[in-house]
Amino acid sequence: MQYIKTKHVDITDGFWRKRQKINKEVTVKAVQDRFLETGRFDAFDFTIDKIPHIFYDSDVAKWIEGICYILYKERNPQLEAFIDHIIDLIEKNRSEDGYYNSHFLRKPDERWKHRSDHELYCAGHLIEAAVEYYKVTGKNKFLRLMEDYADYIYRIFVVEESAAFKTPGHEEIELALVKLYDITKEEKYLKLSKHFIDKRGVEDEPWITSNYNKYNTQDFLPVREQKTAEGHSVRACYLYSGMADIARKYNDKQLTDACKAIFSNIVNKRMYITGGIGSSHLGEAFTLDYDLPNTKGYSETCAAIALAFFSQRMFLLEKNSVYADTVERVMYNGMLSGVSLDGKAFFYENPLELQPVLNNRNVSTVLTERNPITQRKEVFSCSCCPPNVIRFIGALNEYIYSYEQDILFINQYISSTTEYEGIKAEMRTDFPDSGLVDIKISGAGKIAVRKPYWSTDLKIILNDEEYEYSLEKGYVYINLKKGENNLKIDMSMPVLLVKSNPKILDNSHKSAVIRGPLVYCAEGIDNDFSLNSILFNKDLHYHLVKSDKLDANMLEIDVDIPISMNELYSFNAYKYEKKKLRMIPYYCFANRGETEMRVWL
Amino acid sequence: MQYIKTKHVDITDGFWRKRQKINKEVTVKAVQDRFLETGRFDAFDFTIDKIPHIFYDSDVAKWIEGICYILYKERNPQLEAFIDHIIDLIEKNRSEDGYYNSHFLRKPDERWKHRSDHELYCAGHLIEAAVEYYKVTGKNKFLRLMEDYADYIYRIFVVEESAAFKTPGHEEIELALVKLYDITKEEKYLKLSKHFIDKRGVEDEPWITSNYNKYNTQDFLPVREQKTAEGHSVRACYLYSGMADIARKYNDKQLTDACKAIFSNIVNKRMYITGGIGSSHLGEAFTLDYDLPNTKGYSETCAAIALAFFSQRMFLLEKNSVYADTVERVMYNGMLSGVSLDGKAFFYENPLELQPVLNNRNVSTVLTERNPITQRKEVFSCSCCPPNVIRFIGALNEYIYSYEQDILFINQYISSTTEYEGIKAEMRTDFPDSGLVDIKISGAGKIAVRKPYWSTDLKIILNDEEYEYSLEKGYVYINLKKGENNLKIDMSMPVLLVKSNPKILDNSHKSAVIRGPLVYCAEGIDNDFSLNSILFNKDLHYHLVKSDKLDANMLEIDVDIPISMNELYSFNAYKYEKKKLRMIPYYCFANRGETEMRVWL
Repeated sequence: MQYIKTKHVDITDGFWRKRQKINKEVTVKAVQDRFLETGRFDAFDFTIDKIPHIFYDSDVAKWIEGICYILYKERNPQLEAFIDHIIDLIEKNRSEDGYYNSHFLRKPDERWKHRSDHELYCAGHLIEAAVEYYKVTGKNKFLRLMEDYADYIYRIFVVEESAAFKTPGHEEIELALVKLYDITKEEKYLKLSKHFIDKRGVEDEPWITSNYNKYNTQDFLPVREQKTAEGHSVRACYLYSGMADIARKYNDKQLTDACKAIFSNIVNKRMYITGGIGSSHLGEAFTLDYDLPNTKGYSETCAAIALAFFSQRMFLLEKNSVYADTVERVMYNGMLSGVSLDGKAFFYENPLELQPVLNNRNVSTVLTERNPITQRKEVFSCSCCPPNVIRFIGALNEYIYSYEQDILFINQYISSTTEYEGIKAEMRTDFPDSGLVDIKISGAGKIAVRKPYWSTDLKIILNDEEYEYSLEKGYVYINLKKGENNLKIDMSMPVLLVKSNPKILDNSHKSAVIRGPLVYCAEGIDNDFSLNSILFNKDLHYHLVKSDKLDANMLEIDVDIPISMNELYSFNAYKYEKKKLRMIPYYCFANRGETEMRVWL
Repeated sequence: MQYIKTKHVDITDGFWRKRQKINKEVTVKAVQDRFLETGRFDAFDFTIDKIPHIFYDSDVAKWIEGICYILYKERNPQLEAFIDHIIDLIEKNRSEDGYYNSHFLRKPDERWKHRSDHELYCAGHLIEAAVEYYKVTGKNKFLRLMEDYADYIYRIFVVEESAAFKTPGHEEIELALVKLYDITKEEKYLKLSKHFIDKRGVEDEPWITSNYNKYNTQDFLPVREQKTAEGHSVRACYLYSGMADIARKYNDKQLTDACKAIFSNIVNKRMYITGGIGSSHLGEAFTLDYDLPNTKGYSETCAAIALAFFSQRMFLLEKNSVYADTVERVMYNGMLSGVSLDGKAFFYENPLELQPVLNNRNVSTVLTERNPITQRKEVFSCSCCPPNVIRFIGALNEYIYSYEQDILFINQYISSTTEYEGIKAEMRTDFPDSGLVDIKISGAGKIAVRKPYWSTDLKIILNDEEYEYSLEKGYVYINLKKGENNLKIDMSMPVLLVKSNPKILDNSHKSAVIRGPLVYCAEGIDNDFSLNSILFNKDLHYHLVKSDKLDANMLEIDVDIPISMNELYSFNAYKYEKKKLRMIPYYCFANRGETEMRVWL
């Protein structure tokens, strides 16, 4: 199985076309401006003597990588010149042995001494950026520099074993090295990736800092024995992505099984309905099965993206719709909520409930309880998420189609065209506004279409005839005739109430509302009543209302709300009054000022 | 209106008789042993050179005061000798001007410099202990020492104004000085109390520590302008108690109105169903209206007790059953939960929900989130609550009866006798097991009996005839004949479901269960199913089961529990199965090891 890459897929219209336009025209520039202001680009200029943050290199690398996906569709000489200058600075300032790190080159005695200090993580992101930059521009300088760097890392960690630690404190380089191998075919890089994976939890590493233990860095067991998702959720899912890559490259059954167990643990026990992961801000970490608090939920944007990376790779190991379902959950909810509608402001954390009033709870003390921020910000000191959003939205094209032998898989429903290895497909849809999809396809023997997890009813018309189907692990496999085939997919898309597993404490007696892939939320700004203790009717009465401001469908749902009472406690059942509850897609939240927000009602 | 004091009231039988026995025979000794171990008594011995904690004096003083109430019923030469020795040490070690403080006498240059350091608070508790010790034993040395001390405080704070602050950082002395006035009739002490009350929020005080602001110490406004309960909840209710005392002594309408507004704010917006107050461990403070989180709730035992003090005094200003209702709520729930059934172990905080599993949430990091402790402890470093429990249970007698002109008020239903100023009453009841109460009374023109807030149906038989009544602010006023009258009160006591105000976020769609004054809770140890998302039937089916181990009535209630599902999220409504939910009185929780506990279900 292979994905059809961004280069060969055009997103032509609709929801994601708009987001890619904002990504390209606004977000790239907004992040560049913030990075200029905060000295992230200055880090590469060694005439400036300030010691940069330990992960500035990775922020810039992700920003470059994001731009690469955009360049596939339209080259941009000005941005390329800007990037080429950074590459020249890397070439000029790297050390003779190939090492490059803006922070540690300024502290030469500290190289490879601090497992917590993101050295290999930064290297990984630089490698990813170099690979994409070469692929899209054909310019090979950056790639060459990173090959030298990877060769040097191989020497330090495999040949000489001379670093003070054996594996990265923050994983990422594992998956980057697989990309480097794919483009260079140099076995050494694959071996180095496998080396880092094999050694994790085996070698006795120094704890990365006093703030973390071996769970946080996934060091608690050899990775093949791990069955649960533990620790820092971004680190974890980057590692699992690398594990899935290596499992596939080496056809490693044990590693595949570990990946499957961990994936199952995440989606069945440790994932928010938005695709967010990492329940606690402490260690930005996974915590316990079913521990998914709403107001305190952390759900870093990067973690949702990392889960999509992991899901995307798992599908290559097993044809099962749960993987593209999970990508879809992340794309439309927990990832997209991380960036404002105008593309300029960001959330690092994406809780499922905001109660701005709780920020006033600390009136009696100057000590404060930690609550999530309630409004998006343009600048973060820790700014890993904004460039991650750029590269994820930039590369969305490659989540749509994959193929194996003569079967074209439709993983995501996005208006797009592709032409690759004799297969030609054109998909038209206004998804997620509706569930109607038209596909024209030729050059493939079969097409496999995903029935999404939320789809209660899916009809297929093949060449004007209704197609009877059975599902195989969530996909409908359809034999095609020679020449052009017309496929119509009709997924009914009612508003549905979702119950969570009763083990999730915070969702006791509550429901969430979804329509298609979109999780909805209620904001205080749209509702002139308290959002607590609302009752949905058994038969949901609702209608969709187009919001021009949000460019999205709002929902108006008939609900009963409890009439406020004077006393704190009462022996009488609530009296209710009928109201219309307005809800908006979760990804739209916090775009209209500070206000209460809830997913679970 | 006056209460009939402990001296004149005997608790003869039943629920509180048992608790007073444990209090006297176990708790007094357990706390004494812990205080010996931790050097609290050593603090008074100046041949020992260790600097004691700033509030050790108050811990010992409260322990002595608690013993005094017990001595009314049976003198104890051994304990009195122990106390006399402490008094001798105070006499020996106090400074010439009358000052006594175990901590600051060892740091003489620091006297009256640190508003945060509980100097006046310790003085207040010593004064309260001295008053009670004199009243019960007739020995006047302790009282004389404390008069000297109070005279000296008057000089420093009123005459010379030479301290670095104007009012106590931790209130308490205000109400103590009123007690000192009541026994000595020395106006100066009443004036000093009023002085501290009048100056609060008026003078520009140094903030007591960097951890607190002016809300925490009730300094945010002059007290007569305060309308909400703010800040450290123990300090607050000690202050409000003093305010109520001074309002009464000076017939101060403005102060009375402030007390009423604050009391109403507490019971209508800021009090747990258990009578617990102080929603946040940060500053141990009141937070916002309707902010009453269950697992994070703080509800310090001392704060519940302080609320009872405040309520008790408010009744002297206004004949309204809400005050004795609130005392009752505290006595049977938020105070009594602070001590174990065996009388040896204590809770400082009394949350409404314990999820021991959350203490494992921090697996990924050595940083930990703050959760309440889940088992009672025998020793606290901050041990204000255990001796406060001793003195509260010891003095319960005085919460039962009060009188005004020729009316005897029955405020609490406790088997007891009293004989005072020609009034003779005997009450027999197995309350709170049942709501049947027999009272024999003579010597009063009227009796006023409280109809509790939970009582749906109350019948009165006076001298064998059913008595038709109307309520006046929660009391039934009954004319009595000369000679002995027989009164039977029959309060039906069904199990009731309680809904909270829908504005309380944590109780969304949940109910609590009460029977009479007892709030019930469910513990994991009694139920072999998850306590989340339980449904009560519309018509509650239940029966009482006597638990010998807990010496209390357990409840068995028919409920529907959701059948566990494999997936995290589902579009299907829960399927339920029928179960019997076992519940125990809240005050019994955490007496059988670490287990889940919930009030709101």
